Amino acid sequence: METVTSAREMKARCRAWRAQGLSVGLVPTMGYLHRGHGSLVERSLAENSRTAVSVFVNPSQFGPGEDLEAYPRDPARDSAFLKALGANVLFMPKAAEMYPPGFSTLVEAPALAARLCGASRPGHFRGVCTVVLKLLNIAAPDRAYFGLKDAQQFFILRRMARDLDLDVAMVPCPTVREDDGLAMSSRNSYLTPDERRAAPLLRRALLAAEGYLQGGGRDLEKARALVLETLASDPRFEAEYVEAVSTCDLQPAAEACGETLIAAAARLGRARLIDNVIFDPAGGARRPAGR
Amino acid sequence: METVTSAREMKARCRAWRAQGLSVGLVPTMGYLHRGHGSLVERSLAENSRTAVSVFVNPSQFGPGEDLEAYPRDPARDSAFLKALGANVLFMPKAAEMYPPGFSTLVEAPALAARLCGASRPGHFRGVCTVVLKLLNIAAPDRAYFGLKDAQQFFILRRMARDLDLDVAMVPCPTVREDDGLAMSSRNSYLTPDERRAAPLLRRALLAAEGYLQGGGRDLEKARALVLETLASDPRFEAEYVEAVSTCDLQPAAEACGETLIAAAARLGRARLIDNVIFDPAGGARRPAGR
Repeated sequence: METVTSAREMKARCRAWRAQGLSVGLVPTMGYLHRGHGSLVERSLAENSRTAVSVFVNPSQFGPGEDLEAYPRDPARDSAFLKALGANVLFMPKAAEMYPPGFSTLVEAPALAARLCGASRPGHFRGVCTVVLKLLNIAAPDRAYFGLKDAQQFFILRRMARDLDLDVAMVPCPTVREDDGLAMSSRNSYLTPDERRAAPLLRRALLAAEGYLQGGGRDLEKARALVLETLASDPRFEAEYVEAVSTCDLQPAAEACGETLIAAAARLGRARLIDNVIFDPAGGARRPAGR
Repeated sequence: METVTSAREMKARCRAWRAQGLSVGLVPTMGYLHRGHGSLVERSLAENSRTAVSVFVNPSQFGPGEDLEAYPRDPARDSAFLKALGANVLFMPKAAEMYPPGFSTLVEAPALAARLCGASRPGHFRGVCTVVLKLLNIAAPDRAYFGLKDAQQFFILRRMARDLDLDVAMVPCPTVREDDGLAMSSRNSYLTPDERRAAPLLRRALLAAEGYLQGGGRDLEKARALVLETLASDPRFEAEYVEAVSTCDLQPAAEACGETLIAAAARLGRARLIDNVIFDPAGGARRPAGR
């Protein structure tokens, strides 16, 4: 596995593969890699001739007062992790490489970014769209892989790729969890041991809503209330939002008549945890379509 | 020359050329073509194996109260004009093809769009960036050609292409003029015969500023004043702005120390005329660099 820090060199590498008729998969990450990222890399390796992984803690998706400085980083471990998996190239640019002086262009999907995580993180998804579009243009992959823990992010990026006529398949991948159900996240490292033991409550709260829908319930206010009630059982959890939205436009839905995302964010100590379930009344809980 | 209305079909056509090793040039237009557009097509034909032209009156770059409905259209004449020039494919999509239901993504360079035409046309350059990025992604050209009458548009789009790591050379082309100096524009058709005779005053006003700079003057307030004074000689002209900015960031400059754009917009009857001169103290008046 080679490590590349220049966008120009990364472009040349990926374009040489395409010119040879080799398919390319891209896994964009912010590093501090865990098995969740690993599952994306494995899927890309299985579906493409070459797999590129980016590790870039993107400053433009962090707001003032957020954890840009504190965000965990371990490039040496990330590199060893990816090498062991068999990734072909690691793109690890500096911020000045991605955002040189005079950088001025912003990409966003405001209507999809207004709610859920976007409501408390203004500008976050603008930063995500801009950096992911850059990464897609640099690597020019056939397929790009995203974890569904960040469901809103995936739906916004899938929309961006369609709207901007990109030639990439945006592939959603199931959330990978710890044995007790906690969604894997680099930010779980912020939890104290006690908080870590309490953390799976968020998953259990969402499963209560999913169970209600799988049992035939369709009232999404009821589903949200089940999540909120479960979270209220531990006072250390501070719910930021629990929302039920249609996956096509991320607008609130009263009834689960199409593919529905129930997503929640809660503070637990220093960590902000997010998780979700996706329910399709036609097929039960399942994975949303790629592009 | 073939005419294509589907983005999918346009993609297939342009990608097939690329796969054969043929270079592709793109000329994005809003139609009602004149010799200015013709010069872009000719340049593309000279520099590429295949030339694609788009004709699309992009609704998202018109503000409320602007001339979207009135904008002149003549698709049959445009088609004959392009066929005679030797263009290879004409892309003429409907609005619903470019902006299907649920379309949500916006691209912009707000810092470069705040002044000049952007000040009186909020959202205009966001519409331009979004549609041109789509057209570039659909046609995947090696080179794209833009007229310098719309100088701010070119500098914003060149910035966008660099910022988003696109693989396209953005090529600026000199403004084509009528014999009396008026910059060619589809909107000149809004002028009455009397106004048409008066219209070259805008060009003469800008040439006064250019003459001052070419004579060694560097005070851009003075250069602006020369433009405004000349325009004031005909009360039918209503100046909207006269600005002197650096071409790298489109911010106001007091002194012509680097490549400098002096641009003006003025109302004359129903028409809003724009024109500009670009001055480089290192090389006199000349054409700005592509990417």
